[in-house]
Amino acid sequence: TDRYSLLILPGDGIGPEVMAEVVKVIDWFQAHRGMAFDVSHDLVGGAAYDAHGAPLSDATMARAQAVDAVLLGAVGGPKYDALDFSLKPERGLLRLRKEMDLFANLRPAQCFEALADFSSLKREIVAGLDLLIVRELTSGIYFGEPRGIHSDDNNPDNEGGRVGINTQRYTSGEIRRVARSAFELARKRGNRVCSMEKANVMESGILWREEVTWVHQNEYPDVELSHMYADNGAMQLVRNPRQFDVIVTDNLFGDILSDAAAMLTGSLGMLPSASLGAPMANGRPKALYEPVHGSAPDIAGKALANPIACILSFAMALRYSFGELAAADALEAAVERVLSDGVRTADLMGPEGGHPVSTAEMGDKIIAAL
Amino acid sequence: TDRYSLLILPGDGIGPEVMAEVVKVIDWFQAHRGMAFDVSHDLVGGAAYDAHGAPLSDATMARAQAVDAVLLGAVGGPKYDALDFSLKPERGLLRLRKEMDLFANLRPAQCFEALADFSSLKREIVAGLDLLIVRELTSGIYFGEPRGIHSDDNNPDNEGGRVGINTQRYTSGEIRRVARSAFELARKRGNRVCSMEKANVMESGILWREEVTWVHQNEYPDVELSHMYADNGAMQLVRNPRQFDVIVTDNLFGDILSDAAAMLTGSLGMLPSASLGAPMANGRPKALYEPVHGSAPDIAGKALANPIACILSFAMALRYSFGELAAADALEAAVERVLSDGVRTADLMGPEGGHPVSTAEMGDKIIAAL
Ligand SMILES: CC(C)[C@H](C(=O)O)[C@@H](O)C(=O)O
Ligand SMILES: CC(C)[C@H](C(=O)O)[C@@H](O)C(=O)O
Repeated sequence: TDRYSLLILPGDGIGPEVMAEVVKVIDWFQAHRGMAFDVSHDLVGGAAYDAHGAPLSDATMARAQAVDAVLLGAVGGPKYDALDFSLKPERGLLRLRKEMDLFANLRPAQCFEALADFSSLKREIVAGLDLLIVRELTSGIYFGEPRGIHSDDNNPDNEGGRVGINTQRYTSGEIRRVARSAFELARKRGNRVCSMEKANVMESGILWREEVTWVHQNEYPDVELSHMYADNGAMQLVRNPRQFDVIVTDNLFGDILSDAAAMLTGSLGMLPSASLGAPMANGRPKALYEPVHGSAPDIAGKALANPIACILSFAMALRYSFGELAAADALEAAVERVLSDGVRTADLMGPEGGHPVSTAEMGDKIIAAL
Repeated sequence: TDRYSLLILPGDGIGPEVMAEVVKVIDWFQAHRGMAFDVSHDLVGGAAYDAHGAPLSDATMARAQAVDAVLLGAVGGPKYDALDFSLKPERGLLRLRKEMDLFANLRPAQCFEALADFSSLKREIVAGLDLLIVRELTSGIYFGEPRGIHSDDNNPDNEGGRVGINTQRYTSGEIRRVARSAFELARKRGNRVCSMEKANVMESGILWREEVTWVHQNEYPDVELSHMYADNGAMQLVRNPRQFDVIVTDNLFGDILSDAAAMLTGSLGMLPSASLGAPMANGRPKALYEPVHGSAPDIAGKALANPIACILSFAMALRYSFGELAAADALEAAVERVLSDGVRTADLMGPEGGHPVSTAEMGDKIIAAL
């Protein structure tokens, strides 16, 4: 059988705790489904800074480039707040995204039936929600040059005497490739793509709209395409999120809109993500999988964290990196079963209370359901 | 008594209809409260393009500079979709903002008790919501240079051969002045400001955070200040919007976050905004008032539009331009009374239906309540 290589980067805060449950799941698939994983572990974020003085070492970067898929927990924490920009935990994550060229970030926002009442939105607005945001992840204002803070002393009108600059820069090729990802994914779902930008204000948004339209007309005319300004998109996500199937948008809008969409579901501890790049020599895409939630330093080390987002990120790895669709389905079904059985970590307890399970107990229940 | 000069720019779509009701309200204050308004009318947006070939003529621009306050209805419509970027209706609005230097855009998101059930969020999450977003309106990526779409033919990796560029550029002075507006406003409300940016990714966000902190420490230490990344801000607005009092943020984040916040209230047809600049010779700030909603071309000309957002924008003019606090309070109270009496335009009808009033009838009811 094929061997699948994985690099596990648990990172900071609750990252190591939730990743421990993923390791159990990996072991289960090896023991019971005859899969063969080569698993290695390394550091990222604050943990890497503590060990090496940088949020991602060159050695770790090289390893990430060599494996089939990276599984990442979470990065960041108050301990690192005072660090210089270039040393902050986030830079480790951003370096992985950029150097692995993971241009398509898939962020599903799914509302689990058993958890629909957790949303701050009305049940009838979010029940059954299942949308996918495809966020461009390697370009735009996150990486554009020039950037920085400069002195502006010669400008007498500028009290404070400094200027801060970032550049939104997209090439047509960068837009086309992520648009293709969105159209491909839409074909396997509801066959509808909504592209979001601010073409009424930004020229880069005009280019975005034109290139997405070009790809649509020339390569995916069978998929339904619509366009929306990103501010209206934010409104529509709040008003009626089920109108969407696949949303494709740039790095910065995708950051904001996918977080809003995630919160609509009411259960951030449930949401996985995949970041995909170009196919490697073995045909598998460069890939990194991580939960949407952060490192949650306030609950770290207390066995309170919900491992489901991280486990579902591994399900995405089974699907997108290894084509193990049956295994991915089985893992997702096991999560649904455990939830409908009423098993809940602390974050999923309603105001009426109840008995939350620990991080490890949730992992065990999911494995039992497998 | 003082004379107050107003320039009315009804604009496109439902703009003229809702503005007609504001004119009635102005007349009422002249007839019954001894106020003296000098009112002139002009064109903006598509209407101006149709008449002059530009979305704002130089003559109109000069008039806007000369009055105490501009009242704007709405701009845009499908008829103008194919126009060149520089001729689009939006450019008229953006020119007004920029040349009048209206740097502080006040966008209250208030949930009216009588309308709390219209929100897609649960009543207990939004009832009593009353937050104020202060959006920087004259700088950032909306106006930064360089910008444009260029050919990138020498780049063999760029399929499509073009590149789109926009520049986020903030000076410390631009950040400080809008921060001061936010702190001043907070002192009259809940005394709390939350500043939002992406300082973890953008240097302009670092400068934003540093300058807001500087203003706080040196000038407003009595106000409570917190900072939040804008993606988390979007989440928190959906999760628990009542945690906020005043939010201060940049032009682009403000565009997206204020639209999300507006939609939380469930009644976009209710929300006003004010855009304020520096004080003029007479002590009044440069000012433009407009509803948050757009031109709604689908319902234009059908007497269906809700004039309340535009009427409440005039209430903001009474408050912020003319210091007529009692009149502003009276007008807002009249709107609340009419709503609690059950008077509803079509946009405020629940699924159970009922008898909506027309745009003009709503205006008349509000005047009767005055
Ligand atoms: C941690 C941070 C740099 C990151 C981002 O802004 O992309 C995060 O918010 C995300 O969405 O993955
Ligand atoms: C019409 C458009 C240019 C404008 C903006 O993006 O600022 C609008 O969305 C707003 O928020 O007032």
